[in-house]
Amino acid sequence: MSTVWTSRYAARMNNARSSAIRELLKVSERPDVISLAGGLPSPDVFPVVRFEEACQKVLREHGSSALQYGATEGFEPLREIIAQNMARYGIRAKIENVLLTSGSQQALDLIGKLLINTGDRVLVEAPSYLGALQAFNVYGAQYVSVPVDHDGLRTDLLEEALSSGPKFMYILPNFQNPAGVTLSEGRRHQLILTADKYGVPIIEDDPYGQLRYEGQHLPPLVVVDRENLRRDNGYSIGNVIYLSTFSKTLAPGIRLAWIVAPPDVIRRLVLLKQGADLHTSSFIQWVAYEVARDGFLDEHVKRIRQVYRERRDVMLASLKEFFPPEVTWTHPEGGLFLWVTMPEGMDSHAIIEPALAQKVAFVPGDSFYPEDTPEARRHMRLNFSKPTAEQIREGIRRLSIAVKDHLHAVQANHSVSAATR
Amino acid sequence: MSTVWTSRYAARMNNARSSAIRELLKVSERPDVISLAGGLPSPDVFPVVRFEEACQKVLREHGSSALQYGATEGFEPLREIIAQNMARYGIRAKIENVLLTSGSQQALDLIGKLLINTGDRVLVEAPSYLGALQAFNVYGAQYVSVPVDHDGLRTDLLEEALSSGPKFMYILPNFQNPAGVTLSEGRRHQLILTADKYGVPIIEDDPYGQLRYEGQHLPPLVVVDRENLRRDNGYSIGNVIYLSTFSKTLAPGIRLAWIVAPPDVIRRLVLLKQGADLHTSSFIQWVAYEVARDGFLDEHVKRIRQVYRERRDVMLASLKEFFPPEVTWTHPEGGLFLWVTMPEGMDSHAIIEPALAQKVAFVPGDSFYPEDTPEARRHMRLNFSKPTAEQIREGIRRLSIAVKDHLHAVQANHSVSAATR
Repeated sequence: MSTVWTSRYAARMNNARSSAIRELLKVSERPDVISLAGGLPSPDVFPVVRFEEACQKVLREHGSSALQYGATEGFEPLREIIAQNMARYGIRAKIENVLLTSGSQQALDLIGKLLINTGDRVLVEAPSYLGALQAFNVYGAQYVSVPVDHDGLRTDLLEEALSSGPKFMYILPNFQNPAGVTLSEGRRHQLILTADKYGVPIIEDDPYGQLRYEGQHLPPLVVVDRENLRRDNGYSIGNVIYLSTFSKTLAPGIRLAWIVAPPDVIRRLVLLKQGADLHTSSFIQWVAYEVARDGFLDEHVKRIRQVYRERRDVMLASLKEFFPPEVTWTHPEGGLFLWVTMPEGMDSHAIIEPALAQKVAFVPGDSFYPEDTPEARRHMRLNFSKPTAEQIREGIRRLSIAVKDHLHAVQANHSVSAATR
Repeated sequence: MSTVWTSRYAARMNNARSSAIRELLKVSERPDVISLAGGLPSPDVFPVVRFEEACQKVLREHGSSALQYGATEGFEPLREIIAQNMARYGIRAKIENVLLTSGSQQALDLIGKLLINTGDRVLVEAPSYLGALQAFNVYGAQYVSVPVDHDGLRTDLLEEALSSGPKFMYILPNFQNPAGVTLSEGRRHQLILTADKYGVPIIEDDPYGQLRYEGQHLPPLVVVDRENLRRDNGYSIGNVIYLSTFSKTLAPGIRLAWIVAPPDVIRRLVLLKQGADLHTSSFIQWVAYEVARDGFLDEHVKRIRQVYRERRDVMLASLKEFFPPEVTWTHPEGGLFLWVTMPEGMDSHAIIEPALAQKVAFVPGDSFYPEDTPEARRHMRLNFSKPTAEQIREGIRRLSIAVKDHLHAVQANHSVSAATR
């Protein structure tokens, strides 16, 4: 229905797209459906009791401050804990390098607002995190994409992509959403050197870095950048902005994440955040500080790793048990997702309905590309953090039925085509 | 210091301005300074115990849901309470008309994103709420302003301003920030009829509407609009988008506000909010629901009215006692602010330092205008919600010293000029 508002929407609204996933997720929330579609942490690992104690302490001892307006930059003791925590991963950030945000999604929105003029190109991995594309789209971003393989971004294809002059690169180096792959250490060095050569900065999005279930921690890009290129100058002239979040280590419902950047970038982001939401809830920041402090966060992350590692292993074993040999998948060393690749000619969209008929849901691969292509549709993203081990095995079993049916139909069709050719 | 980022900021960053107020507020936070500068609610009226009970209940009974990701639109029971609450003020909103936001500042940002192309004009009151100007600036808004007097927006000057073709009007009808004035009922009708005639829609920002200390509640613009023009069509084709918040009735540190709009507008705002922060903290929404429910919100608002009414009365009495007769001020029927007007030739900026020397702070009037002019500088905004009654009286006494000194200096200078002319 047309209203007085219809004719008044800004031009950028033409770029605003809803996430197809969100519609699918609504269906997958039906209680009888096993959802491998979401990206949710498991509520089994929410530290509910610790939150309860923290709320009580904050309200009894600091109610007047915690319920009042706060600083746009964020609550200082929480930023201090974040800085300390990152130091153990080699990231040397001072408190003035850290800006608290209302989830990583806000970090991505602020970065889009800060950097993107309509028509600017952003270099992204193919596939990449959908929420980033959504955030950048409204600012009129165009994309140039570089494929990932089992070692992450194909850095051998990077120079060609950089020659199109992107404003920045958006990279998820650890257990990437959706593909679950990790950028190898050699490629991290290659990426940083090439970025420096072309003068193109990097947004490093690292929501899952602490959730590693096997293998060795690899240095974040922000650390490789400093060590390779600017050892003596510290963080302040870095080529990399680093993002992370409490969504996967404490709980997503608190919407707390952060940006690490040079002070001048932080100052501008603070200005934009002032206009965007003044500041993130002071109450929730006080509570998160009380929850995380005194080493709790580290201990809790260990527990999450244990739970998710087991679920990942069940998913890998179930895929091997039930899926046909023509289909392959990644072996994520951490994070929440695994990426399935089907043979050419198969289309994950053809499996959505049959899978839902089997009461199992997944996300088709094209959701994670700037453009819908047959290549993109050969993939499925599967989540192993939210469903239990039992649900994972049963879900993969059900999904394999839909996959095999589609595979056989494609093979039969192919034989017919070949015979009549 | 120049970094790789410096050359990459988007063009809109030229429009991003910091609030001069925020710098002033930092000084005014010194414990020995009586601040009449802020816009903070009093922590004396934060319902801390009720919050503690609510947190405990939510975490014990609904921890898994409250700490998980939630819907972009907001938590349904909270939106339901908001709809019920507004119904008593005549606003007929269904739950699908209500979008939860991370404070009213986010509502303003989303509205700017939805409606403003670079160079679009926005009609604002002079003076107007600074945070709105900050939010709209990054989208490249230009302004056309219409002055307010003791009855709010000068609707007699509206048609001329509308002839410049603004995209929308941004209006604070109740106890306006900063001027403390209220749009009279007659002018509300005039505004709606004129808006309809020119086809220019209205954003009605109403953070203080429930905090009325005397006189009768006046119908919100969204109600006048429906009743005057669209009686049979209900809310859905309304010409007015309505904003309000829990910041002044529960606590600002929870960052919860809402937008009421036709469904098509809400759908687009949801799309933009998805990209901006996915959703507002589910935990804080569950807690706010538990705090507000069962009539608590209404009872609590009555208590706030009582406390703030007394403080307003002390400020009015103190101004009368201490300020020179050449200076006038508004008589706010509600809200948090009072607006002082000094004689021509006086400049509130000349008083900032002498006032701070007396250990009292206020905000100079030009902060609330799109442009700094001598007329704008004749004003001061004074807050009466945060300081106690004793602090208000002492603060006004101290401020009167700085005001009188400046007045006498201006008068002496004027006499000299007159004598030498």
